Amino acid sequence: MEAKVTGLAGLLFGEQIAGRIDALAAITEAPGQLTRIFLTPEHRAGAEMIMAWMREAEMAAHLDAIGNVCGRYEGERPGLPCLMLGSHYDTVRDAGRWDGPLGVITAIACVADLHARGVRLPFAIEVTGFADEEGVRFASTLLGSRAIAGTFDESALGSKDRRGVTMRQAMQTFGLDPDHIGAAARAPAEVLAYVELHIEQGPVLEAKHLPVGVVTAIAGATRLAVELRGIAGHAGTVPMALRRDALAGAAECIVAIEEFCATDRDGLVGTVGYINAMPGATNVIPGMVSFTIDIRSPRDPFRKLAVADIVRQIEEIVKRRGLQLDINVTHENRTVPCAPWLQQQIAAAVMAEGCPVFELPSGAGHDGMAMIDITDVAMLFVRCRGGVSHNPAEHVEAPDADIGARVLLRMIENFAPKG
Amino acid sequence: MEAKVTGLAGLLFGEQIAGRIDALAAITEAPGQLTRIFLTPEHRAGAEMIMAWMREAEMAAHLDAIGNVCGRYEGERPGLPCLMLGSHYDTVRDAGRWDGPLGVITAIACVADLHARGVRLPFAIEVTGFADEEGVRFASTLLGSRAIAGTFDESALGSKDRRGVTMRQAMQTFGLDPDHIGAAARAPAEVLAYVELHIEQGPVLEAKHLPVGVVTAIAGATRLAVELRGIAGHAGTVPMALRRDALAGAAECIVAIEEFCATDRDGLVGTVGYINAMPGATNVIPGMVSFTIDIRSPRDPFRKLAVADIVRQIEEIVKRRGLQLDINVTHENRTVPCAPWLQQQIAAAVMAEGCPVFELPSGAGHDGMAMIDITDVAMLFVRCRGGVSHNPAEHVEAPDADIGARVLLRMIENFAPKG
Repeated sequence: MEAKVTGLAGLLFGEQIAGRIDALAAITEAPGQLTRIFLTPEHRAGAEMIMAWMREAEMAAHLDAIGNVCGRYEGERPGLPCLMLGSHYDTVRDAGRWDGPLGVITAIACVADLHARGVRLPFAIEVTGFADEEGVRFASTLLGSRAIAGTFDESALGSKDRRGVTMRQAMQTFGLDPDHIGAAARAPAEVLAYVELHIEQGPVLEAKHLPVGVVTAIAGATRLAVELRGIAGHAGTVPMALRRDALAGAAECIVAIEEFCATDRDGLVGTVGYINAMPGATNVIPGMVSFTIDIRSPRDPFRKLAVADIVRQIEEIVKRRGLQLDINVTHENRTVPCAPWLQQQIAAAVMAEGCPVFELPSGAGHDGMAMIDITDVAMLFVRCRGGVSHNPAEHVEAPDADIGARVLLRMIENFAPKG
Repeated sequence: MEAKVTGLAGLLFGEQIAGRIDALAAITEAPGQLTRIFLTPEHRAGAEMIMAWMREAEMAAHLDAIGNVCGRYEGERPGLPCLMLGSHYDTVRDAGRWDGPLGVITAIACVADLHARGVRLPFAIEVTGFADEEGVRFASTLLGSRAIAGTFDESALGSKDRRGVTMRQAMQTFGLDPDHIGAAARAPAEVLAYVELHIEQGPVLEAKHLPVGVVTAIAGATRLAVELRGIAGHAGTVPMALRRDALAGAAECIVAIEEFCATDRDGLVGTVGYINAMPGATNVIPGMVSFTIDIRSPRDPFRKLAVADIVRQIEEIVKRRGLQLDINVTHENRTVPCAPWLQQQIAAAVMAEGCPVFELPSGAGHDGMAMIDITDVAMLFVRCRGGVSHNPAEHVEAPDADIGARVLLRMIENFAPKG
């Protein structure tokens, strides 16, 4: 059932949001495509635009010690703890325009609406635009939210971008002091909760014909690098029975990974995204194949069991085929659960806006993965066309953006801190 | 059962051959590795060395119109039709030293032995060193043997090497006239048969503990280029059931190809040697995969049925998965049978040298594929270590080279033209 949007007031929210999405997307280092990277002039220009919108909504706005945009709308009296809203405003290269900015712009729109109606709440509202979530420049993600959570790893300052510039140098050039990133950290007592609105970046809401969904958890992930070594040989002269074909072995592993995950049990997904067969000639049996595996599930014990099972299956395949195996975990993230009490308040707002409540995990990573270290987190997903993200074709319909804003606004107005 | 080599005389054959293999391998354009390419100074130097060995064996030697080395040892009287022996003396890049030269050097050694004993036969013997079998420079194989068979395709003269030099220009620089390649062609009446000794380039003789094998046919081959298109997506956000994963589809195809060929029925072999998955990132479901298939069998009707069956299986996999398929035949070679009457004479010589007669097809291509157009062809394979070829590790033990030479010499001395 398609949720209907009625009334002009609603559409005005969506249209304003879509307009601001386009305005922010115009700030890019690459004409004709959207690329807005940490600690660049485009970062600066994006921050200025966002802060202007914040000030329009009667928020105090400043850039923090790592370049996050921080806007604050006081509650019934100054200095109250805040409900923090937000998302990131950096992008991948050749990005879509909705991934990140939708959460920042929608949150500001909600505050603007409160301000226009003269509403002050028994808590402050803060909107944070995180400076770096994607991690494009220094191959290290969540830099902005980690600084706010007080978990920024100082060793990242030595990381270099592809031009050889260190993060330390880039911060100085940008006008920030790399020795004072700690100043961005917030105390847990200042933050009642962190709630992020974000596009789904997947096709589930579209398949369910729903404009929004309540996120249950940000799925944990394990990435593995696999190398199979067999024996290269002439494609014409080595009988099948005498082969040690590394690619045939890898293919059997890929089929097994897909079969194992195919049940979709506990939100398990498994992906082989990269493969390389050497020497890679039509008439040579591959002697070496490397590939990656990405396994995710919002239930960590299940993910770990799944990884162990998949590794065991690969070991069996490799042994039976007389291949050599090298398999390593290259990355591991724990699952970040969304707080049930926050999920309930979001669900109530969804329902009050006339939409069915649908819960789903987030398979992609988000700033909540860092924010969990200082406060409870929750997320509201908005449908995106075809589930496409990290791509110029990324798109949200204005009526969906509108419903997202109305749900968020209602959730804010009815927000009750954890008892 | 390992065939035993006894007596000094035998070992001297093998040692001389191995010494000449090393001498020819020293002629290379790349210090530290062996690369001897068509129409280069190394081609010229290799030809001069081979012609010197021919003249030592009392053969008339010349370079023909395409750069083949042609040596002739007259029979009981001048001008008799010849038994043609030979192989090629060009190499792949970073080659082994035995692939090609072993056949040329062994044939000269046989003639030298006849000459030393003052033997003249009721037919002439010609030894041909083909100038280009590998096709490295102009991406067109069997140039030397096609010129002798009169089937050289003049359009190849316009082909360019990787520096942009056409074959026409390269021939002129080498000192040959590209407008007179036809002069290299031999009349069928001049050639009684073509017999080639060559390393196996596969592991079958080694697995059977045999120094030599009688080739039944040069297997026909079909090569296909396959492209599967699915839908790229986020490795975390797209549930398994909603995926159109091109790599998982390709993996299923590769497993199916291997299973289909696994029976080794009729010498069938199938290889996927090249694969590329796009976009090729750990956390992105591949939206497009291309791969190659190489199918060979010494029985053409069976190979054609196998190709059709494999294509049908791929079509089923692709349809079930909702992928798009593009599949094309990029190359097709018919099977070249070795003449039974020649095979019998080679087998008799193998047996007379005390070796079991073992028959096997050649999965690799050879000059006989061109020579079949003017005469009956046959081949004798010599065991190579580990089946390794097109690699510096390519190796033949001197005792095996020796047995090969003795079998060839015996076959020559007992040769009876087709009745």
